[in-house]
Amino acid sequence: MKIYDWHFAPNPRRVRLFLAEKGIDVPLEEVGTPAFGLKPEYLAAHPEHAMVPMLELDDGTCIGEAMAICRYFEELHPEPPLMGVDAKDKAIVEMWERKATEGMLSMSEVLRNVEKGFVDRSLPGYPGQVLKQIPELVERGNARLEKFHRVFDAALAKNRFITGDRFTVADVTAFCLVDFLPVVGMPVPAEFRNLHRWHADVAERPSARKTR
Amino acid sequence: MKIYDWHFAPNPRRVRLFLAEKGIDVPLEEVGTPAFGLKPEYLAAHPEHAMVPMLELDDGTCIGEAMAICRYFEELHPEPPLMGVDAKDKAIVEMWERKATEGMLSMSEVLRNVEKGFVDRSLPGYPGQVLKQIPELVERGNARLEKFHRVFDAALAKNRFITGDRFTVADVTAFCLVDFLPVVGMPVPAEFRNLHRWHADVAERPSARKTR
Repeated sequence: MKIYDWHFAPNPRRVRLFLAEKGIDVPLEEVGTPAFGLKPEYLAAHPEHAMVPMLELDDGTCIGEAMAICRYFEELHPEPPLMGVDAKDKAIVEMWERKATEGMLSMSEVLRNVEKGFVDRSLPGYPGQVLKQIPELVERGNARLEKFHRVFDAALAKNRFITGDRFTVADVTAFCLVDFLPVVGMPVPAEFRNLHRWHADVAERPSARKTR
Repeated sequence: MKIYDWHFAPNPRRVRLFLAEKGIDVPLEEVGTPAFGLKPEYLAAHPEHAMVPMLELDDGTCIGEAMAICRYFEELHPEPPLMGVDAKDKAIVEMWERKATEGMLSMSEVLRNVEKGFVDRSLPGYPGQVLKQIPELVERGNARLEKFHRVFDAALAKNRFITGDRFTVADVTAFCLVDFLPVVGMPVPAEFRNLHRWHADVAERPSARKTR
């Protein structure tokens, strides 16, 4: 078993952080390149799911999508539960994780349409296909990201973590996003104080330190 | 308990079809309008999650996101299982469901940027905020949708249903998309024969007929 990883990118970090919370070690294979992309051998082997993270099982089965990989380990290693503990909690965690994923996509929408390294690759997962940058998406991505800040700040005004007193996979995704934003020049504005308090809290967790 | 629904739209149909497969009846409240939008009272009550479907529990808790709602019912009514039966299967179903969601978003990217009824509302969930249509997204959305056709057709060349012999929530999402495409003038091209065979098969299920 191994996980194809891109250390720099926020999306594969979700899986590494999730596994660190569970205390599970899985070998990683770095397939990122300094040119904002993935190694040609990896793209050639996975032309239709040319993204990371990807879990490869010993029988050769490849599982893409960060949350599908987390689901696999949540089932095999239920403790500590990171995807909810009963029907209502599981639904609420899934709702907030999907909202956090929407935040991640918003950041990506800005970054991939403004950064020169992503010219002709305005979406991930289309190797060899030209997808031109669309400058109008920078403004729209920023509007989406502003909503992420507002909605998550409001949730964190009520709770220590996003869905309550327990750290969940919704915190994993949201943290990987918020921790990455300053790296690409889009830090969370200071007015979102609850988001900043929560970020500082999560950043001290061993899982966050280990996966930096 | 009730579900806020928009009968015409493909996204809330995912929940109705899922519930029909489980044999669960939940009261629906229609909040769609003929003007491609949601009723003002609903938007005012849910300004930050101004989308459907939404499940409202008897204690007032509101759960948005179609898959979070399905998760709730999968936990309470495990039979028949629609989200996988063991760790590996659950992960594979989740991966394919997320790919199908990406297909749904691709269709939406085309529709919302070309249809006059969506002027200034190129994304759902931002009531009162102007999000201009971006004509370049029509081409990009079509490229994404073409990938959906290609990837799902290839999966369905090997299996009766998307992940194997069992109907799952990945089929639910993909079916709600494929069944909607002709309604908005974007039918799956005839060359994707496996996708057409599977669509005809699923369309005969009582759940598909009931939720038309």
